Amino acid sequence: MIYSFRNDYSSIAHPKVLERLMECKDEQNIGYGEDYHSDNAKKYIKEKLGKDSDIYFLVGGTQANTIVISSVLKPYEAVIAVESGHINVHETGAVEGQGHKIITIKGKNGKIVLDEVKKILDTHMPTHMALPKMIYISLSTEIGTIYSLEELKEIYEFCKCHELYLFLDGARLASGMVASNITYSDLANYTDVFYIGGTKNGGYLGEAVVFNNKEISKNFDYAQKHYGALMAKGFVSAIPFEVLMQGNLYLEIGKKENECAAYLQNGLKELGYKFLSDSVTNQIFPIIPKDMFPILEERYGVELWEVLDTKYYAIRFVTSFTTTIENCQEVLDFLKEYHCDWFLFHFL
Amino acid sequence: MIYSFRNDYSSIAHPKVLERLMECKDEQNIGYGEDYHSDNAKKYIKEKLGKDSDIYFLVGGTQANTIVISSVLKPYEAVIAVESGHINVHETGAVEGQGHKIITIKGKNGKIVLDEVKKILDTHMPTHMALPKMIYISLSTEIGTIYSLEELKEIYEFCKCHELYLFLDGARLASGMVASNITYSDLANYTDVFYIGGTKNGGYLGEAVVFNNKEISKNFDYAQKHYGALMAKGFVSAIPFEVLMQGNLYLEIGKKENECAAYLQNGLKELGYKFLSDSVTNQIFPIIPKDMFPILEERYGVELWEVLDTKYYAIRFVTSFTTTIENCQEVLDFLKEYHCDWFLFHFL
Amino acid sequence: MIYSFRNDYSSIAHPKVLERLMECKDEQNIGYGEDYHSDNAKKYIKEKLGKDSDIYFLVGGTQANTIVISSVLKPYEAVIAVESGHINVHETGAVEGQGHKIITIKGKNGKIVLDEVKKILDTHMPTHMALPKMIYISLSTEIGTIYSLEELKEIYEFCKCHELYLFLDGARLASGMVASNITYSDLANYTDVFYIGGTKNGGYLGEAVVFNNKEISKNFDYAQKHYGALMAKGFVSAIPFEVLMQGNLYLEIGKKENECAAYLQNGLKELGYKFLSDSVTNQIFPIIPKDMFPILEERYGVELWEVLDTKYYAIRFVTSFTTTIENCQEVLDFLKEYHCDWFLFHFL
Amino acid sequence: MIYSFRNDYSSIAHPKVLERLMECKDEQNIGYGEDYHSDNAKKYIKEKLGKDSDIYFLVGGTQANTIVISSVLKPYEAVIAVESGHINVHETGAVEGQGHKIITIKGKNGKIVLDEVKKILDTHMPTHMALPKMIYISLSTEIGTIYSLEELKEIYEFCKCHELYLFLDGARLASGMVASNITYSDLANYTDVFYIGGTKNGGYLGEAVVFNNKEISKNFDYAQKHYGALMAKGFVSAIPFEVLMQGNLYLEIGKKENECAAYLQNGLKELGYKFLSDSVTNQIFPIIPKDMFPILEERYGVELWEVLDTKYYAIRFVTSFTTTIENCQEVLDFLKEYHCDWFLFHFL
Repeated sequence: MIYSFRNDYSSIAHPKVLERLMECKDEQNIGYGEDYHSDNAKKYIKEKLGKDSDIYFLVGGTQANTIVISSVLKPYEAVIAVESGHINVHETGAVEGQGHKIITIKGKNGKIVLDEVKKILDTHMPTHMALPKMIYISLSTEIGTIYSLEELKEIYEFCKCHELYLFLDGARLASGMVASNITYSDLANYTDVFYIGGTKNGGYLGEAVVFNNKEISKNFDYAQKHYGALMAKGFVSAIPFEVLMQGNLYLEIGKKENECAAYLQNGLKELGYKFLSDSVTNQIFPIIPKDMFPILEERYGVELWEVLDTKYYAIRFVTSFTTTIENCQEVLDFLKEYHCDWFLFHFL
Repeated sequence: MIYSFRNDYSSIAHPKVLERLMECKDEQNIGYGEDYHSDNAKKYIKEKLGKDSDIYFLVGGTQANTIVISSVLKPYEAVIAVESGHINVHETGAVEGQGHKIITIKGKNGKIVLDEVKKILDTHMPTHMALPKMIYISLSTEIGTIYSLEELKEIYEFCKCHELYLFLDGARLASGMVASNITYSDLANYTDVFYIGGTKNGGYLGEAVVFNNKEISKNFDYAQKHYGALMAKGFVSAIPFEVLMQGNLYLEIGKKENECAAYLQNGLKELGYKFLSDSVTNQIFPIIPKDMFPILEERYGVELWEVLDTKYYAIRFVTSFTTTIENCQEVLDFLKEYHCDWFLFHFL
Repeated sequence: MIYSFRNDYSSIAHPKVLERLMECKDEQNIGYGEDYHSDNAKKYIKEKLGKDSDIYFLVGGTQANTIVISSVLKPYEAVIAVESGHINVHETGAVEGQGHKIITIKGKNGKIVLDEVKKILDTHMPTHMALPKMIYISLSTEIGTIYSLEELKEIYEFCKCHELYLFLDGARLASGMVASNITYSDLANYTDVFYIGGTKNGGYLGEAVVFNNKEISKNFDYAQKHYGALMAKGFVSAIPFEVLMQGNLYLEIGKKENECAAYLQNGLKELGYKFLSDSVTNQIFPIIPKDMFPILEERYGVELWEVLDTKYYAIRFVTSFTTTIENCQEVLDFLKEYHCDWFLFHFL
Repeated sequence: MIYSFRNDYSSIAHPKVLERLMECKDEQNIGYGEDYHSDNAKKYIKEKLGKDSDIYFLVGGTQANTIVISSVLKPYEAVIAVESGHINVHETGAVEGQGHKIITIKGKNGKIVLDEVKKILDTHMPTHMALPKMIYISLSTEIGTIYSLEELKEIYEFCKCHELYLFLDGARLASGMVASNITYSDLANYTDVFYIGGTKNGGYLGEAVVFNNKEISKNFDYAQKHYGALMAKGFVSAIPFEVLMQGNLYLEIGKKENECAAYLQNGLKELGYKFLSDSVTNQIFPIIPKDMFPILEERYGVELWEVLDTKYYAIRFVTSFTTTIENCQEVLDFLKEYHCDWFLFHFL
């Protein structure tokens, strides 16, 4: 493989995160999140939020989504998500596994459409239907799109009007924040709970769950332990966030990812490719003749995203903190040559 | 109210069921389903099935659906249903409450479309998606339609080819069997598990769950108790089935219900009404100007089924074992007069 | 069998309950508990309680215990019970099935000992142990003993001091109330939630769950449906309570049961029998030579309760609303004769 | 603090593990456990087992216990454990949280007593009690004791006779294996499933679950994802095991821990201390006058294990891969001096 664009969790961690880990190797820390690194990481996050939110470190995205949702909702309450939402498609029924229905709406560009949510609420039949109590959104979405700050505010206000909680999945938050100009403070003010993804943004693992609404975070530590998600070595989960959140590293990673993705997307557009979605983040979805797929898969580890018809596939390129403009240019160079060869082969 | 067409569970039970209950009032029976009546009811059912299936008496439809599904599936396995399926819409997340995802397909006329199921299987991503392992269908469906025997066979064979279980919800089985000519023996041969609805077909309560596939019924009694669904007075749940299944009473009830519903539907068609679905069972869904709804609701207890647009509603009439042709004719007479008055009022 | 003392749920229902059922047979009622009988039964119960508690009708004891506990507790919260408690021993893990740990204490005479509960609270390790949040007691207990009003008050006050809910399982409440002189009003004042058992006290089925603490009953109807426990024919579950609660029938049944049990227990004592517990309710537990068990089982359907050693069994006689003093005298006469024969056989 | 004996998860990881992590920092790996490191770690483990077991990497002990138990057992099945078992006491109801009852026995020295298990099986009441289906043991136990190979074999054979699965919790397996001379191959042959603890034995996190009985491991990857325990960066969880299992490092860590603990325990015995249990592993439980506790807590981070009476506490010292004989000697020296001072203060 030349360079893998398969995903943003191929490499262990950002060099600075690993450096810090090594610096701490001779320490003895207290267990279960009561250590210095956890406190310190929380302090950095709260400074960025400008708010004294409740923060917990979990180790994975599906885990974070499931435990947040199941600790906040009552057994008969449901979460609303778009059909393409990660919790609905790619979590092997984890949310349902803890007892909660996901009510899906079509959405648009991978995003919630409030009119559709409104219809869910209007046709709710008390007692006989699961009670909608939370909206789940992602920044960025599964297909690389983003919410604007205006959209986020509007959804949050809708939630407050209708006694719903707003939960934002931040598996790819760095890229999403940079693309949308949504700030930490916006996230603090316009969501009830969200998480800052570490795994896909330079951490070796870990997601920092942030409860801005303290009515729903009471005893979350019990919930964390109850669901097997409280790590004995809590400091190991906290250190990545200590590094990513100390200065501006987290968003710098997002910025670099987005720049590479944009460079690649633009280059591909110039070569005549069309795209499944209008991504502005670190995942892009070019449409290719299906015969090209094995070649690109071998060279770049890209995944098949969707079979569009008998001839065309949408595939996914993902950039990460390791991706360089050179990596992207190499893809473009290869494709230019490939096209040329293909042209020669077919028409001469 | 003149006569309630609201549903088929308005009256305590068919007179013959109540008679039998009274005949047994001085007996002392063993508890928890180990009694004579339970054995006897099972015997009658097995004779009709022509098969030594495993039979259990539960007390309600949501309970039956939930316990069957959660006792058969492993935690990470999912059930496929149409969007309008009872388990998906009207059970307050009960199936999810026991940990299982419902994968929905659009379907057609309230029925499963195998091409859509096929697509679910084809796009299944191992490990990352809940594993489809069961198809859920209803006879009759939520909108009064039925599967033909050919369709049932085809779905069952599809299931066997793809290692899926087929579960048939028989909340309104009497009406559905009569309309489709599907027999007890067909149900025994072409489903893995189904239930014979008592609550909506003349019993005071109770659903008889029938496992034709004994690989999945092992220790169902434990599951029944574990989910709080094993009645101390098991004989009270069994007696309705002893009566309904001894001769042909169950299907006679379905036949009468269907005849009344057809009479009413035809009469309404002659008066010019259109319908939401082409029902052949005991639920019919005429479309009415919304201003008529309060009048019909008051006289006949009918429910609003769907708001079609700003002017029209689809409403639901349900016939039951207590419904007579006279009850239906009274509706038609009233509407004839009402139209006449309305005509006079508006045009003269 | 001469007469079955096996349990108090051998017969369909008290004659007055069945009479009333038959009187209502031609009615058309609204479904899902929104009917006249449900309202009426609630009215009678509230009058007895002297309190506007929230009341719901469920169909079985295990179901009631499970749904109350799991709707009140958060996922990581636990209920405290004596080891012999019904929820701990005879419910096939139903409470755990909905996610909650039962923390057990030894107790005394089948009853909670507050010092033991105190120790549980004192050694609770935050985050790492399930959080004790409810005490579960039964009136009468599994071995026929009762709490006095003073004891009930003391437990309730303990609960209020320690932020615990008190839940009283009333599967055999009629017998327990009569023996303890605890009134409906006491139950309203000194529990957060309890249930009035119908199944074992003259109803054909059904338990009336009474929430005196309205902070924990919000949306219980959703929970009821979510757990498959909301009956379409809610009126069928309500009618027994309408009858049992209209006048004093419920306690009359308990009184008669207790009188029969006391008569039998006293007679057995005179014959020299010892007992496993000092029961004052409708279950008594004489200790017999194990060779006698098959004889008594055949004649009276009694159950083996505990194997005490290689020679002796504790067995259980249960009286019900159908038991008469004559039934009890017949047992005593038989045993007198049996002893006589046995004496002749062994010593002459 | 002089040196922390608080637990064996105070330090990030064994130096060799961290070294290896750093060596891999520039790699691009495939996600979700399909990477080279996962394969390699599995290969090393299988070589040690001498068996082609199914191996999965999870991130924590409570998580491993919960997912193994809930993926193996049916909803109504229960696991048997000693009262002091980790799953029963220190997991915040996690096993119950996934629906399973833990049936407890008193046990002896923190270990299962088969006679007690036998009694559970003998008094099992079908349908009405949760079905015992698994025995849970730990090596080492919560109080530092071990099973001998003979005991392990006996328990395993008992399990096979009674259709029970045997699950061994290996949170502290290195120390336990060394102390008991139980080998990897013994674990492969005499358990159905066990896990090799990483977190407390030199890994930064992670537990390697080993299914020797392949009948119960089918689709465990789905279960892993369903419970939120499948890491995107599976290679991060696998690397510690690659290092610990390549040569003999895992057992060397256990050996060193045990030697230090024995040195400390013997020294304390010579000073006249008595112990709560007769530990042969890396946890020791000296009994001290309670006034000494704050002093030892401050110097060595030790935890209070049990309040024995008004005067004495049992406390816990834990040794880890970082502990040296010098650290232990320092404790002994301090205590010698302390005793001397105390003697002077009290008697002169």
